Amino acid sequence: MSTTQSTIQPTAAPEKLGIGARFSIHPHCDDFVPVILGALEDVEAAGLTDGLVLETDDVSTYVGATGAPAEERLARYLTGVIAAAARRSDGGHVVAHVLLSRGCPGERTCDLAVTSLPTPEPVTVEATGVAATAHWSLYPLLDGGSDDGDHMAHIEAAIAAAQRRGTASAAAHYATRLSGDVADVLATAVDAWAQVGAHVPHVVSHLTVSIASPSAGPAQ
Amino acid sequence: MSTTQSTIQPTAAPEKLGIGARFSIHPHCDDFVPVILGALEDVEAAGLTDGLVLETDDVSTYVGATGAPAEERLARYLTGVIAAAARRSDGGHVVAHVLLSRGCPGERTCDLAVTSLPTPEPVTVEATGVAATAHWSLYPLLDGGSDDGDHMAHIEAAIAAAQRRGTASAAAHYATRLSGDVADVLATAVDAWAQVGAHVPHVVSHLTVSIASPSAGPAQ
Repeated sequence: MSTTQSTIQPTAAPEKLGIGARFSIHPHCDDFVPVILGALEDVEAAGLTDGLVLETDDVSTYVGATGAPAEERLARYLTGVIAAAARRSDGGHVVAHVLLSRGCPGERTCDLAVTSLPTPEPVTVEATGVAATAHWSLYPLLDGGSDDGDHMAHIEAAIAAAQRRGTASAAAHYATRLSGDVADVLATAVDAWAQVGAHVPHVVSHLTVSIASPSAGPAQ
Repeated sequence: MSTTQSTIQPTAAPEKLGIGARFSIHPHCDDFVPVILGALEDVEAAGLTDGLVLETDDVSTYVGATGAPAEERLARYLTGVIAAAARRSDGGHVVAHVLLSRGCPGERTCDLAVTSLPTPEPVTVEATGVAATAHWSLYPLLDGGSDDGDHMAHIEAAIAAAQRRGTASAAAHYATRLSGDVADVLATAVDAWAQVGAHVPHVVSHLTVSIASPSAGPAQ
């Protein structure tokens, strides 16, 4: 906590909120390397990396937001790279794992507990034509003594919003099943995560996004 | 909350605590279906499914613990199935994603907030000879008004324990890097998750476990 906490602006910059993601993409094919590298090139060529910092290691890729609108940039980038991998897989099975994070105390540069958090706008992400099914989990990281109530109330409100949107199709153990265009699936998770972030400083969400699974039945 | 809360035993049964996991395995090869199905058969043949309930859908597999020691059964099963997939991939790249959960209010059958939570024993998992690198995150889901302090203190204690154990090799954005035999990587995450669970009723952990990545450098 710095001595300048009282001067922090109500709408903190994305990098001050530590808004970002980690993701990994898993094409289930022998030629997975060119699929992944090609998808990363596709989204860069499409201009979807603007306002983002990318760092790839051998497990996953970090995407940090450096420019507003941070949530929309992340949603468009993640949608774009997953859809690109699906297209490059020619209908093959592709899975992506996504971690969304905001306000992690190890990342941020100010004491969020004393700032006014920004109220995010819903993101707009163009449909891709790629259908996906995901298992989605949302974690509001409250602390003892805070006034933010119980974490399940935030989760239940997010699930209700996803049901109204039409992407939440069923509950699973420890996760909610989302189905739809990969753009709608990602937008649902990003909007919920950002919405909880207007009340709780540190919020994380995980998605396992599956495309063209051979064990998938009819769309549900 | 029932009127019998005061009679709840200090060591609640695993199914009452909702102890379980979800996982998905991603062999990066054209023949991924026989690799996955074969790995699931291998762990069943090895008796590693005893005391567990399994439900597979098109995105991931749920593993619920029904018998003690719940944490060790989960750690051995998850280690076994990931190592089996790696062996069946003949040195190819395999990634697994694991979600560990305990005390989720949607799963459990008693009010954990008023029970005495069990203090878990560290798990023992036989080494596999399969080296893995993982990104690991731990989420203690505290609530406002609880006496459990701040969630980062629990996370930092878990990372310190993993460093003493020798599996935590570096910090990454939003995750800690774990390296070692896949058994040690899983045991590190399971022990940390169970240890926090002795103080916080609802605790979730996620791991992305990578084996034989072509972009991995020397072991670190």
